Amino acid sequence: MRGYDTGYNFDGISGERLAERLDAISEIGLTKDSGSHRPGFSGEEKKAKDLAAKWMKDAGLEVRHDGAGNVFGRLPGKNDELPALLSGSHLDSVPNGGHFDGPLGVLTALEVAEAWQATGYQPERPYEVVAFTDEEGARFNGGLHGSEAVVGKSDIEDKLKLVDYNGLNFADVLEHIGLSVDDYLDAKRDQEEIDMFVEVHIEQGKQLEREGLPCGIVTGIAGPCWIELTFTGEAGHAGNTPMKDRKDALVAAAEFIGGVHELPALISDTAVATVGKIDAEPNGVNVIPGSVTLYADIRDIFKETRDNLVDKVLELAEKTADKHQVNIEHVEKMRVAPVPIEDEKQQLLETSFREKNIRPYRLPSGAGHDAMIIGARWPVAMLFTQSKDGISHNPDEWSDMNDCVQTVHVLKNFLEKV
Amino acid sequence: MRGYDTGYNFDGISGERLAERLDAISEIGLTKDSGSHRPGFSGEEKKAKDLAAKWMKDAGLEVRHDGAGNVFGRLPGKNDELPALLSGSHLDSVPNGGHFDGPLGVLTALEVAEAWQATGYQPERPYEVVAFTDEEGARFNGGLHGSEAVVGKSDIEDKLKLVDYNGLNFADVLEHIGLSVDDYLDAKRDQEEIDMFVEVHIEQGKQLEREGLPCGIVTGIAGPCWIELTFTGEAGHAGNTPMKDRKDALVAAAEFIGGVHELPALISDTAVATVGKIDAEPNGVNVIPGSVTLYADIRDIFKETRDNLVDKVLELAEKTADKHQVNIEHVEKMRVAPVPIEDEKQQLLETSFREKNIRPYRLPSGAGHDAMIIGARWPVAMLFTQSKDGISHNPDEWSDMNDCVQTVHVLKNFLEKV
Repeated sequence: MRGYDTGYNFDGISGERLAERLDAISEIGLTKDSGSHRPGFSGEEKKAKDLAAKWMKDAGLEVRHDGAGNVFGRLPGKNDELPALLSGSHLDSVPNGGHFDGPLGVLTALEVAEAWQATGYQPERPYEVVAFTDEEGARFNGGLHGSEAVVGKSDIEDKLKLVDYNGLNFADVLEHIGLSVDDYLDAKRDQEEIDMFVEVHIEQGKQLEREGLPCGIVTGIAGPCWIELTFTGEAGHAGNTPMKDRKDALVAAAEFIGGVHELPALISDTAVATVGKIDAEPNGVNVIPGSVTLYADIRDIFKETRDNLVDKVLELAEKTADKHQVNIEHVEKMRVAPVPIEDEKQQLLETSFREKNIRPYRLPSGAGHDAMIIGARWPVAMLFTQSKDGISHNPDEWSDMNDCVQTVHVLKNFLEKV
Repeated sequence: MRGYDTGYNFDGISGERLAERLDAISEIGLTKDSGSHRPGFSGEEKKAKDLAAKWMKDAGLEVRHDGAGNVFGRLPGKNDELPALLSGSHLDSVPNGGHFDGPLGVLTALEVAEAWQATGYQPERPYEVVAFTDEEGARFNGGLHGSEAVVGKSDIEDKLKLVDYNGLNFADVLEHIGLSVDDYLDAKRDQEEIDMFVEVHIEQGKQLEREGLPCGIVTGIAGPCWIELTFTGEAGHAGNTPMKDRKDALVAAAEFIGGVHELPALISDTAVATVGKIDAEPNGVNVIPGSVTLYADIRDIFKETRDNLVDKVLELAEKTADKHQVNIEHVEKMRVAPVPIEDEKQQLLETSFREKNIRPYRLPSGAGHDAMIIGARWPVAMLFTQSKDGISHNPDEWSDMNDCVQTVHVLKNFLEKV
């Protein structure tokens, strides 16, 4: 096909099929902005999972729906008693999101199964293609519920307190799709059922685009830590309070923000720290800010460096508050363990890249993915596919089909080796 | 009276009367929080002005209402053809405001007339007590309409476009209190009618409290300049964007905020600069801020230094934006000329302070007042009375009655000298 690389339809892998399937999924929950709108546990998500299940079945896979609504398509291995290789991602989306975040991972995994079936290859181990439920969390403002069920994360009490945008609780929502809380708990897989999980996902960043590469090797999935910080000084009239008499909460917060930006470089190459949300009170043009609340989002792919960075950020907050004679309080809102990816898996992926004539480029995943959850119990690996302009969670999200197909070739090669 | 200084009821000045009148005004528009709610051009403001007019009449002053609703009470001078001395302030309040901001200036001016009448003193020049309409601007989100009418500020076209919180325009609002736009324009006074204006006002700051002084000499009224600045970088995922690839609008804005805080000290002792309002976009915990809009409020009592400071702030914005590779745009929202107070008037006030055994302390007025408007055409002087904790525009606004009475003694002494 004009404009496409060698390999687009080759070795059992069909770029045309992959493109058609991505297109078919994108039609489900299509918005007026040409975005995808498939919240977790919604009718649209279910429709997308049903379509994927049909494709799995057509490809000769044994389809199973678990108690969390996750869909598995299994290809028996030569030695079917061995723990399975698992690959996939999710089919739900953020509100008015893009067409690649999630579906690409499910469909590339399925494309490997298609290729194996077409070429008569049978893997040593059983292979399962998976579509996890509700990764994005659009329904309950917090997602990953499908992969968490598989891991058996023991926070069901917290989940039962969740209320969705329709006012329905977690149990109601499961019931709406014909499931129960018991079904959800039963979705937990035994340790020996799974050997490892590999997830393909769009990068949602610009590194691969800048490097001119179709895909890259994820070195680890950063665990975010969110800290809410409140600087409290003294509000006052912007005209009547001499500079030396001020306890300006925003001036203190500003110095902190600048300092937070400098800290990650002192810790590691992969660490990041961001102040994305800031609210000043009373936020009037002619009033000295009496208090400022802001959030620090701190990530790294290694627990030790991430936690070290969190400590440094908190020390900086104390130091800055002292200097400006304002008060500081903080609340830790979230601290998720990072999932570093085993060096052995990265090495094996590097071999696959070289065999497919792609320069192996390693990069961390700053965002969380189902692999972050699965990584708590089983070894994981991840491949990123180049994202145009790094745009994601937006109808303009785009990945070139050549890059997607090359990712399938790498994934297939890797799954045949692992 | 127990707890009150000598002079509380002395020399014709009655602290009791002043306290009773402040109390009577505070009852008009009293809120459930014990605050004052008398928006400009409201029934409450009119009621307060009518009560003041009654007191003026009872004191033997000749009462006149002008076309802007300003109330004047005139005491003839020995030489009644001379330009008049004018003293007063306003009786409107911000929503749920305090009981001293405005009324103190009107009632201290009236107390001087009462004292003169009681002691048989007749001033050389005619003396007018004034209550200006709508200083605070609660109705149209921008005030000083009474004093502007007296000055004859030629922005009537702009005023006619104003719409109040009831959806009424400026002409409608005048009509509601029995006035017209022509009446408003007729309120302009001739140059030779007025010699000077003296305003007593609460400090709304903490300097006099810290110095332990009842009142102070205002050196000038700072003219505010408001600049809206927008830093525009690139929004991005807080996890997936390496630190070195960021164009974080908030990091640039933060450095700017810190710099703005340092600038006034380089310019003058009286200059102040504040970033009071800040809004980041999209303001999400895990999103690098793509743009930040903030406001710089820049003031000094001298035009040259104030304008110099504005230039320095804008240079800083450019420099900071360049350094962080973000874009910067600014819009000047307001630039009011500062009103320095003539040295001769300050010297004369100093003599009055010394004669009343009060240490003369000079301080700038950072906030705007009717004297700022009148100062555009006539000489002005201002006295500040100590404010408890600097609190203002709030039901907790408070000035000790002894301090108020001592201010009347200084004002009376000054008006007898000028």
